[in-house]
Amino acid sequence: MTSDASRPEARAPRGFADRRARDLAAERRILAAVSAVYERYGFEALDTGALEYADALGKFLPDADRPNEGVFALQDDDEQWMALRYDLTAPLARFAAQNWETLPKPFRRYAFGTVWRNEKPGPGRFREFTQCDADTVGSSRPEADAEIVAMAVEGFDAAGLSRGQAVLKINNRKLLDGLLAEEGVSEDRRKLTVLRAIDKYDRLGWEGVAALLGPGRLDESGDFTKGAELPFKTIAAIETFLVSAGASNLARSKVIGVLAGLPMGAAGQEALGELSAIDSALTALGVGPDLARIDPTVVRGLEYYTGAVFEAELMLETTDERGQPVRFGSVGGGGRYDDLVARFTGQPVPATGFSFGVSRLAAALRAAGRDLGGEVRGPVVVIAFDQQHMAEYYAVARELRAAGISAEVYLGSSGMKAQMKYADRRLSPAAVMLGGDEIAAGTVTVKDLDLGRELARGVSDNSQWREQRPGQATIPRGELVAFVRRIVEGGR
Amino acid sequence: MTSDASRPEARAPRGFADRRARDLAAERRILAAVSAVYERYGFEALDTGALEYADALGKFLPDADRPNEGVFALQDDDEQWMALRYDLTAPLARFAAQNWETLPKPFRRYAFGTVWRNEKPGPGRFREFTQCDADTVGSSRPEADAEIVAMAVEGFDAAGLSRGQAVLKINNRKLLDGLLAEEGVSEDRRKLTVLRAIDKYDRLGWEGVAALLGPGRLDESGDFTKGAELPFKTIAAIETFLVSAGASNLARSKVIGVLAGLPMGAAGQEALGELSAIDSALTALGVGPDLARIDPTVVRGLEYYTGAVFEAELMLETTDERGQPVRFGSVGGGGRYDDLVARFTGQPVPATGFSFGVSRLAAALRAAGRDLGGEVRGPVVVIAFDQQHMAEYYAVARELRAAGISAEVYLGSSGMKAQMKYADRRLSPAAVMLGGDEIAAGTVTVKDLDLGRELARGVSDNSQWREQRPGQATIPRGELVAFVRRIVEGGR
Repeated sequence: MTSDASRPEARAPRGFADRRARDLAAERRILAAVSAVYERYGFEALDTGALEYADALGKFLPDADRPNEGVFALQDDDEQWMALRYDLTAPLARFAAQNWETLPKPFRRYAFGTVWRNEKPGPGRFREFTQCDADTVGSSRPEADAEIVAMAVEGFDAAGLSRGQAVLKINNRKLLDGLLAEEGVSEDRRKLTVLRAIDKYDRLGWEGVAALLGPGRLDESGDFTKGAELPFKTIAAIETFLVSAGASNLARSKVIGVLAGLPMGAAGQEALGELSAIDSALTALGVGPDLARIDPTVVRGLEYYTGAVFEAELMLETTDERGQPVRFGSVGGGGRYDDLVARFTGQPVPATGFSFGVSRLAAALRAAGRDLGGEVRGPVVVIAFDQQHMAEYYAVARELRAAGISAEVYLGSSGMKAQMKYADRRLSPAAVMLGGDEIAAGTVTVKDLDLGRELARGVSDNSQWREQRPGQATIPRGELVAFVRRIVEGGR
Repeated sequence: MTSDASRPEARAPRGFADRRARDLAAERRILAAVSAVYERYGFEALDTGALEYADALGKFLPDADRPNEGVFALQDDDEQWMALRYDLTAPLARFAAQNWETLPKPFRRYAFGTVWRNEKPGPGRFREFTQCDADTVGSSRPEADAEIVAMAVEGFDAAGLSRGQAVLKINNRKLLDGLLAEEGVSEDRRKLTVLRAIDKYDRLGWEGVAALLGPGRLDESGDFTKGAELPFKTIAAIETFLVSAGASNLARSKVIGVLAGLPMGAAGQEALGELSAIDSALTALGVGPDLARIDPTVVRGLEYYTGAVFEAELMLETTDERGQPVRFGSVGGGGRYDDLVARFTGQPVPATGFSFGVSRLAAALRAAGRDLGGEVRGPVVVIAFDQQHMAEYYAVARELRAAGISAEVYLGSSGMKAQMKYADRRLSPAAVMLGGDEIAAGTVTVKDLDLGRELARGVSDNSQWREQRPGQATIPRGELVAFVRRIVEGGR
């Protein structure tokens, strides 16, 4: 045995969470529901590895200026840099470029899996989370974008949200490109600063964004963020752009009409044409304006988007443990990334997709009490009284399992009382007892732990409760499965 | 667009595989089947993160002498070393140590997920694969080991293997400990060399092992491996130990009887007592000697095992593409690791578990033609003739999806012929065509692509086949879903 000093500390790295059965069940339900939607739309499953070469992933994370910033990177034996994927899109682009000749076109794939971001962890902010994506690679048609949005809407419904609890917001990056071109702003660097400023609209409001577009902004902590130093005229044009179409309940075609009245240049006109086509297709797909709307303030942090961008905002009212309202905000996003495959091949391959923030959605559903499965139930526990009767206990457990009921023989070394406590902590529906008398008589004693827990909550006089021995019955061995089944089904 | 020279190459790191729908479906079926067995036995789901602190993982990989060898390691911002988990057991030990006070005891958890080993990749040898484990932490009873073995047996059955196609082999490391102690071999280093030599018994036979136990061994490539330099007498004792009980069809109690006749010392006697208890429990659990046997040659590579060890060998006959027989060997293993939690806490916590090598099992099932799901079918493809009728196409796709049939509207930019080819490549059961005439007449044309593929294989006279237009019918629009359903169900 190692001495105290040399013992490692039992802790997970910061930002990595251990997840127990209840959280996992919620996440698995979401993944199964969303995957089923994707499959019904004709998307096929694909899984790529967790590690990619760093140059293949590229540097598209928001606010990641230094090499390997934002990702977990390491060097392979041959000195090549690899990194854990930060999303499922960059690996898809690599895969599509590598296999383009042999793929059906358009290539429609869905994927779910873990992604990693080497960011500063905090409460509710992890460095590892689950995404579930669908992408169409090889179609430049706005209908492909509309279909992605329609699937996202259907996916949120399948995941357990009621109509209107998630809203898809649609924008097109070329609108701002066109507007900035009209204003004579063309340097990529400065355009990126503008994008990042607008991305904070939700959090800072127009005042804050205006400061970031102009001289810069001093935040509450005293940190100063350098601004884009745009002239006043340009800032005013951006304000008109962001705010004029910002009424949240405007129909999609109305927003397009308002934007069409602004000086947007060629890129902007192209974007408006695409948005119109997306609007028509969404209408044909049955996605009304309450489920998906056009919102010029949507930017998305990832740098690889080239046209349409999508963001899912959770409208669900949730509260934390102290009853304070919690804002979950974005629970998914995506867009069109027409240049990502061409990074590898030089050949343009248009592509569009959406990513569900599964971990965040699961947390939101749970916070909103919409965690449909509730607690995960434990198995029926067969109490182990006596080593010499183990074969009997196993036989009982096997019978229950064969009937589809989870069951286990207690395998610790504690006595009867601790075994009951164990069954209770596992949220077991019932405990099964087989003493020598019962075995001799061909009977079995079953204790209904669900009922016991319920009664224990309501009965103040403990001695009375004890006398009644609620929910405990000795029955013929042949009736065991039927008896336990009634308890299990009643308790759900 | 980037120039040729600066473009990244589209490739995954060596040893990382991209997996398409068929492989994923096979793996998901195995995971669902094995997880269901684990849950039925009362094991609860747990998920830990992919990265752990390197000191928490420990160095238990076979043949890993240098720091970080065998794992993918990287430094966190605070300079602490982290590594991708190489199995699911070491993270469980960390979790159990961290949360011991609040866990139900014994703590029974199952987990599935990706693990990573930084080994030399090769054909069929990956650096990333999937495991599915169940472990009981906090029980020293041999019954806990027996239950783990029984679940493994049931898991292979659930995964699609027929009875006897996988055999569980059971050993106990303390047998060899006892034997070596009797022979005066006590240094850990030398005992490890002995273990590693015996681990190669399957591959090298007794001759090769004997060389590694003695002076060393020169392999075919001319590489010399240094031996344990044991005296002849000790090597002979090990031979008796390994070979005397090696008849594969000996009943478990018979093997124990043979071993009991050898000079095994105190540790060996303890091991034999445990094996006897495991044997009895297995019999009570209904696991006969054809499904689980005792085999003294089983070692398992991981260093953390302290007593019972288990290995699942695939007896399934498989062949490669050239019809050559393929030996898959071990498709899972486990054992008792009573010191792993104590590494952190100093308090002994006995534990035992088993890990399915899911990726290897999936590959084996596939190679054996037992890949039950077969090809993954594509969606029904609605041919897109005319931009102005997109709404009609969407309506058809929605109808099919609402009936549970996967469907998509073709969203590429190619003509009718290429669209048909696309549907064929996706293994779509049917294509749906809606021209202007059909829309006007309230009809729809459905082409049975399954039938078409079948006929195309059998008919040599192409012109005749073309005339017949097999499996194509124009039907009233109201009959679409029923018609397509017949095709989809017939094709499965």
